[in-house]
Amino acid sequence: MSELAFIEALRKIAGHPAARGLADDCAVLELGHETLILTHDAMAEGVHFLAGQDPADIAWKLVATNMSDLAAKGAEPLGVMLGYMLGADDARFLAGLEEALNHYNAPLLGGDTIAGSGPQVLGLTAIGRATCRPVPSRAGVQVGDSLWITGPVGAAMLGLEALRSGTGDSSAYRRPQALLAEGQALAPHVSAMMDVSDGLLLDASRMARASKVTLAIDSTAVPIVTSEDRRAEALRWGEDYELLFTVPPTFQPPVAAFRIGHAQAGGEAPIMLDGQPLDEADGIGYQHDR
Amino acid sequence: MSELAFIEALRKIAGHPAARGLADDCAVLELGHETLILTHDAMAEGVHFLAGQDPADIAWKLVATNMSDLAAKGAEPLGVMLGYMLGADDARFLAGLEEALNHYNAPLLGGDTIAGSGPQVLGLTAIGRATCRPVPSRAGVQVGDSLWITGPVGAAMLGLEALRSGTGDSSAYRRPQALLAEGQALAPHVSAMMDVSDGLLLDASRMARASKVTLAIDSTAVPIVTSEDRRAEALRWGEDYELLFTVPPTFQPPVAAFRIGHAQAGGEAPIMLDGQPLDEADGIGYQHDR
Repeated sequence: MSELAFIEALRKIAGHPAARGLADDCAVLELGHETLILTHDAMAEGVHFLAGQDPADIAWKLVATNMSDLAAKGAEPLGVMLGYMLGADDARFLAGLEEALNHYNAPLLGGDTIAGSGPQVLGLTAIGRATCRPVPSRAGVQVGDSLWITGPVGAAMLGLEALRSGTGDSSAYRRPQALLAEGQALAPHVSAMMDVSDGLLLDASRMARASKVTLAIDSTAVPIVTSEDRRAEALRWGEDYELLFTVPPTFQPPVAAFRIGHAQAGGEAPIMLDGQPLDEADGIGYQHDR
Repeated sequence: MSELAFIEALRKIAGHPAARGLADDCAVLELGHETLILTHDAMAEGVHFLAGQDPADIAWKLVATNMSDLAAKGAEPLGVMLGYMLGADDARFLAGLEEALNHYNAPLLGGDTIAGSGPQVLGLTAIGRATCRPVPSRAGVQVGDSLWITGPVGAAMLGLEALRSGTGDSSAYRRPQALLAEGQALAPHVSAMMDVSDGLLLDASRMARASKVTLAIDSTAVPIVTSEDRRAEALRWGEDYELLFTVPPTFQPPVAAFRIGHAQAGGEAPIMLDGQPLDEADGIGYQHDR
């Protein structure tokens, strides 16, 4: 079964209003006076990280990607549960884990440690509480809203190239930053928000489809960290973990951000890039095997 | 690094009062007027399940073991987050997952689905809410308390033998039952409680050590489902998921249960079995490679 088919089948057996979290999104669970935000990311050696990569960086990324999911909900972390398969250098993993958890002020609550015989597989569940209700989703864009991003794209792309070549700064790929403070500051004001993990254009198309609008993006307004000739690539590359959000047209966001487009009535495609319709068939997003 | 050494190192970086959940126990997290109970179990092909086993049974067991952790806390499930690596028969896994989640009234809230190249590795985080406070732990046994178990041991042992031989009833091994209702009924009355996942004697020794007492167990009082000549084995085999608990000496539990011993002042060993001291060095518990 394909990943997408499996997720589609999972959706059918979920049926719970909290179960937004089956693909990339978080679960949102009302409990007493609180709203819990839950997310789980799994990573496999050879698929989500390279076999020879520093386990401290792998630990950092496992934590940061989950924290980024919380950031997009304006949530603050309550803690994490770790599913750990023993690997080549567990001490290095622990060092990176501790550093990341301290950085994000996310306590380690529990988990499970197992031995395994194949490639290492890791899982992390992050639990947060919403700081603002309603909790932002990707489905709230209104026609006329402006579309913003908190920072440039392309840094992780350059970082992976640096890591592979052994020259240059690979930190953006190895040590992504989750924007928890920015997400909390934005949450009360946004009509929709998500983190950009799989590529700006692909993630924007998901937001557009969830909101039943078309997002018109001005490619030259998108900040990039690469040279101009790689702009198209940078817009399609993932793992930068900036926040993508929409607000009413005249609203000025309370954090540093760049206006890159606006929402219009749902049309022939989820995205209009410089006036050209684009959808998933156009290869707009992140492929893990690239 | 060994599993135990890794867990020991994790404990050092945890430091949070909720972080009881690093080995087999659950995390307990106060949030507003609620107490959250969190547990995570990971399972690897070839270690925790056989390569050719029915994926529906694997899904059931993954859910049931997590639910049993909640049961030991007297918690009711709020939902689960699934970390799933695509495997040989994902449709069968989904069928077992749906059956188990319906059985335990535990909604699927979210998760992550990944492709992987090696043996299948699965993770499940269960989230529950405490129905009773203080939440039972394994550390509360008082000297003089009586020790009880909710049902017989040895059923999973016979079940695995049936599965391997292809004859007889393997359901106790394939489809363990988590005792959520019993756990909730017991929680207000127990001084300590845990589920028996790794063998009665090993788990009792953990309870004894956590509570700084010695648990004196009368082996003939322990209900078994095997023939008498396999009593010693049954007391050491795991995966039956009965609840082990202590109550004041004259208290009669509100659910079906068997009195198998009592707590005395901490002595030379965590367990006295029919008057003989026993500890972990005596091979009293579950080995995954048996």
